[in-house]
Amino acid sequence: MTLDRALTIGKHEYSLLTDLYQLTMTACYVGESIEDKSASFELFARSLPPQYGYLIAMGLAQVCEYLENLRFSPEQIAALQATGIFQNAPDRFWQLLESGGFTGDLWAVAEGSAIFPYEPLLRVDAPLWQAQLVETYLLNTVNYQTLIATRAARMRDTAGERAKMLEFGTRRAFSPQGAIWAARAALAGGLDATSNVLAALKLGEKPEGTMAHALVMAVGTLAGGDENEAFAAFGRYFPRAPLLIDTYDTVKAAANLAKQIIAGEKQIGGVRLDSGDLVALSRQVRSLLPNVPIFASGDLDEWEIARLQRDGAVIDGYGIGTRLVTGTPVNGVYKLVEIDGIPTMKLAVGKVSYPGRKQIFRRGSPNICDRLGLMEEDPENGETPLLELVMKAGKRVKEEEAIAVIRQRTAVSVASLPGETRHLENPQSIPVEISQSLLDLKTRISKK
Amino acid sequence: MTLDRALTIGKHEYSLLTDLYQLTMTACYVGESIEDKSASFELFARSLPPQYGYLIAMGLAQVCEYLENLRFSPEQIAALQATGIFQNAPDRFWQLLESGGFTGDLWAVAEGSAIFPYEPLLRVDAPLWQAQLVETYLLNTVNYQTLIATRAARMRDTAGERAKMLEFGTRRAFSPQGAIWAARAALAGGLDATSNVLAALKLGEKPEGTMAHALVMAVGTLAGGDENEAFAAFGRYFPRAPLLIDTYDTVKAAANLAKQIIAGEKQIGGVRLDSGDLVALSRQVRSLLPNVPIFASGDLDEWEIARLQRDGAVIDGYGIGTRLVTGTPVNGVYKLVEIDGIPTMKLAVGKVSYPGRKQIFRRGSPNICDRLGLMEEDPENGETPLLELVMKAGKRVKEEEAIAVIRQRTAVSVASLPGETRHLENPQSIPVEISQSLLDLKTRISKK
Repeated sequence: MTLDRALTIGKHEYSLLTDLYQLTMTACYVGESIEDKSASFELFARSLPPQYGYLIAMGLAQVCEYLENLRFSPEQIAALQATGIFQNAPDRFWQLLESGGFTGDLWAVAEGSAIFPYEPLLRVDAPLWQAQLVETYLLNTVNYQTLIATRAARMRDTAGERAKMLEFGTRRAFSPQGAIWAARAALAGGLDATSNVLAALKLGEKPEGTMAHALVMAVGTLAGGDENEAFAAFGRYFPRAPLLIDTYDTVKAAANLAKQIIAGEKQIGGVRLDSGDLVALSRQVRSLLPNVPIFASGDLDEWEIARLQRDGAVIDGYGIGTRLVTGTPVNGVYKLVEIDGIPTMKLAVGKVSYPGRKQIFRRGSPNICDRLGLMEEDPENGETPLLELVMKAGKRVKEEEAIAVIRQRTAVSVASLPGETRHLENPQSIPVEISQSLLDLKTRISKK
Repeated sequence: MTLDRALTIGKHEYSLLTDLYQLTMTACYVGESIEDKSASFELFARSLPPQYGYLIAMGLAQVCEYLENLRFSPEQIAALQATGIFQNAPDRFWQLLESGGFTGDLWAVAEGSAIFPYEPLLRVDAPLWQAQLVETYLLNTVNYQTLIATRAARMRDTAGERAKMLEFGTRRAFSPQGAIWAARAALAGGLDATSNVLAALKLGEKPEGTMAHALVMAVGTLAGGDENEAFAAFGRYFPRAPLLIDTYDTVKAAANLAKQIIAGEKQIGGVRLDSGDLVALSRQVRSLLPNVPIFASGDLDEWEIARLQRDGAVIDGYGIGTRLVTGTPVNGVYKLVEIDGIPTMKLAVGKVSYPGRKQIFRRGSPNICDRLGLMEEDPENGETPLLELVMKAGKRVKEEEAIAVIRQRTAVSVASLPGETRHLENPQSIPVEISQSLLDLKTRISKK
């Protein structure tokens, strides 16, 4: 076996980034000669995370990259064979993996669109084995990216357009790639910049940041215990970078800086508060440093931002980390809705499903209103179908969008939602009507 | 700029996987000619996640891999220069990045050890700029791996040694690498196997899995609607794989299988239940299929496993996903504790810290009992120092351990803890004594 044993993931290793059963089921499909039957799977969430009224669709860029590169190398095939798991699999299974790539169609909602329970974020129409095999990766990327984008959109909606919002989550993100992907979705969801250097450079953005307590302590200690030395030192190389003023005594630090500014000895680009009572401290700092932007950080999320605003904090920017990049996930699922032209539906207890290849028909005004129907239905008056053809026969037919374009769509999407859907406390999802044809189909299948 | 724009991370890109301020602070240190002052940073958590009584240290393998490979390529340096952020940085900053690698010492607690608030999981003793620069990556890997290992250990402790426990979290994990890393920490924390094929192969383990609803629906539908066709088909290639029996009617499916087993037509390796009342269903299935292992899945965690046991479920194995790999993080921090031989400590409001280079002295019997002291203190009667030298002058002096060794250490660690620390409801951390020398040092520094 010549797989790279390091826990980094090589560019060409993603085909194996799947649950074992996708491969065993593929082997079974081949054995039963049904691997090429046309199948349709839809990815959707049955519910929203607690206290969410909407989701912002995200992750399509990674889905396309993955589908375009789906193939198995001889080394990967050898590694699979060496497990002994596939000893009864037909030879054609291995030939399929060797020769295969993704040749299907992908329909998806544009990244940055608002989406609601049971609405497909994407559909794969492909030979059964391909549509099956890609499930794990597609769920992984769409669930995670959608979660982060939704959170970012809600935080932006709460903080307002003028707040500067920075993504600081890398140290708490779930793996390095989790950090990179969080940065992407956060920017596309409405944040201004990320502190993650690699993420920013990969996304063609400029990283942003402030300074850490360690510098205040290191420079200050070496210079005899004075944090002013640390501020002066950092300012020599980064005159516009915000200074972190809570290492020892926030108000004293602000007062010292004020004296220097008044004496004309100093200009500063901002200050950051990372601990203590942010309401009281921000007001004290503002009175001492009236023209200096104040950044706050430390376990912030949309609820905490709202509380700070309500309580009269004067904060111009937020550094957002832990509560953006960790927590309760989006529980998207990927379900077979049609096989060989026959609509299908799972009947497991307590889990509602809708059969068949679907389309979301959205009416944008006066109020946003969705109808979940079948693909073949026509849009009614003023409705727009949300699922667009993104890949055709394995090739992209819709170009990848720039982060700025997606961020703009997110902003428009959120602005189009009613207040009760944007609320932070008990938000209400918009009503999603189920079309008569879809209801009829569901009834027909349930009876079988 | 020739950075790879794909959102995969190349093996040599991890040096840029850092917060911007680590680089700006490094530039400042160089400008002030203090970049080579010896610095010590310790990584610890001030508190445990809610309802946790201990942590299982994990992530050291990735830390070592990262430190051994830390270097900046000419392309990366060019990309940094192109941002314009560093225009006032001294030339020596770039020379340092060009020539630099990690030349410091790393002290760490062995993976699989139980650890408590304020106890350092690791310490970096290195030239200031290196010790600073690595903060973001070290926190990322240790916070995440420790979280997953701790959860896995708690789930194993709850389910008992004989339960088969499978890691199924990839579809909900926060990024593909998040899935791979979760699989590693889950296995090292006590689970038996992962369904993630790439993770298993990279770890030298055999992936495991069952089957999905899609196969039941696809094969069943194509064969005219009968799930027995699906079970028969899958059994032809994977005779020992557990069958998923809740797609339509769990009890009916079990009764059908029982008839075939009695008629000598079928042998099965297990069944999986993924929905409904797992207590009632598992009992009904057990009475129908007395000798068939029953696996359960669906939003399981340690509390749900305990509830199922309490309520009389008969379950032999668990598939664990969402609640293993997502959720509330471990909030480890990385703090400067000494610079140029001078102990340091942050005084920010509401955040307790201890200065100086520390050691954890553990007494294992009759009850586990820890003393947090200074490195130079001697162990007292029966105490073992937990922090070991892992890298010396940038080179590993302690070999990487196999997953099986770490898993064994985790099991021993958990078994050594008192019942109230292992409880799922309001667990109590063990008492950690602060040594007199450390208390004296803290008092001395606070007064300054």
